[in-house]
Amino acid sequence: MADVASSKERRILVAVDEGEESAYALSWCLKNVITDNSKDTLILLYAKPPRAVYTALDGTGEVEEDRLGYLFSTDITAAMDRYSSDVADCVIEKAKRMCKDLQDVKVETRIENGDPRDVICQMVEKLGADVLVMGSHGYGLLKRAFLGSVSNHCAQNVKCPVLIVKKPKTNAENK
Amino acid sequence: MADVASSKERRILVAVDEGEESAYALSWCLKNVITDNSKDTLILLYAKPPRAVYTALDGTGEVEEDRLGYLFSTDITAAMDRYSSDVADCVIEKAKRMCKDLQDVKVETRIENGDPRDVICQMVEKLGADVLVMGSHGYGLLKRAFLGSVSNHCAQNVKCPVLIVKKPKTNAENK
Repeated sequence: MADVASSKERRILVAVDEGEESAYALSWCLKNVITDNSKDTLILLYAKPPRAVYTALDGTGEVEEDRLGYLFSTDITAAMDRYSSDVADCVIEKAKRMCKDLQDVKVETRIENGDPRDVICQMVEKLGADVLVMGSHGYGLLKRAFLGSVSNHCAQNVKCPVLIVKKPKTNAENK
Repeated sequence: MADVASSKERRILVAVDEGEESAYALSWCLKNVITDNSKDTLILLYAKPPRAVYTALDGTGEVEEDRLGYLFSTDITAAMDRYSSDVADCVIEKAKRMCKDLQDVKVETRIENGDPRDVICQMVEKLGADVLVMGSHGYGLLKRAFLGSVSNHCAQNVKCPVLIVKKPKTNAENK
């Protein structure tokens, strides 16, 4: 069966974010899914949450864009936008560096605006991904409680296989 | 990175059941995860639901074993047990046949009694699986509504990476 795998072109979409878990998911994917002599295309996707969601992540609930304009001066919102763009570039760069040893695999990057749950599901479809790889959380505990698990949402909504990678922990979090 | 993957021993646990989706998940795994020249061990796991769960699956709610004994004669319960054992053997045989082209990969099989959600999570830990592969449903619509999604439960509770494979559909079930 191995020859089938290596002769096939696969589009592997890896959702990356600021978290260590997504870096681990990418690394696991590079070691276990990607075969370097294949015609795989690896797409690194970063979903940049819109400003309203960023604020909502603080636990205060969703704040409308108009209200944000009222709360913050133009300078501040511009600085926030710049900051989130810098974060996006930084995450994508870090992910690309992790893939530097790949020789035959084409690596593409995408930065898309929107709620990660929606962005990831939409991109899977739009880019014709054959498999989606992501960390199991993608958010910290507080954000996750508010937004729900991104991986859960994606696993339920995308049509292609989903590989959810959890960063190993030493403590027994689960029974 | 490919050499790291092929030189590493991985224990790949595939949860199989009666459904087409689990057969598709196994087939996807054989084509995309397993490398035949590796030292991978492929473990095919079938979780045989206990009789009480079987009955509960009809949508009448969980029925205790004692109550079952009252409802059914010994003959009937024996026939039901035999039937579920036959199903288990049949599923495992079918899964093994799908793996017949693997040459260097060791294939092991396990049949365990219990709710698939618990069995799969326990076996991942007990067998030291490096990755769990399963279909996204594992149950039909009615059973799923009652029991919840097996793959959801496992993705949340096991510590290793989980690959959830959905059988492609032609109709657009999801947005």
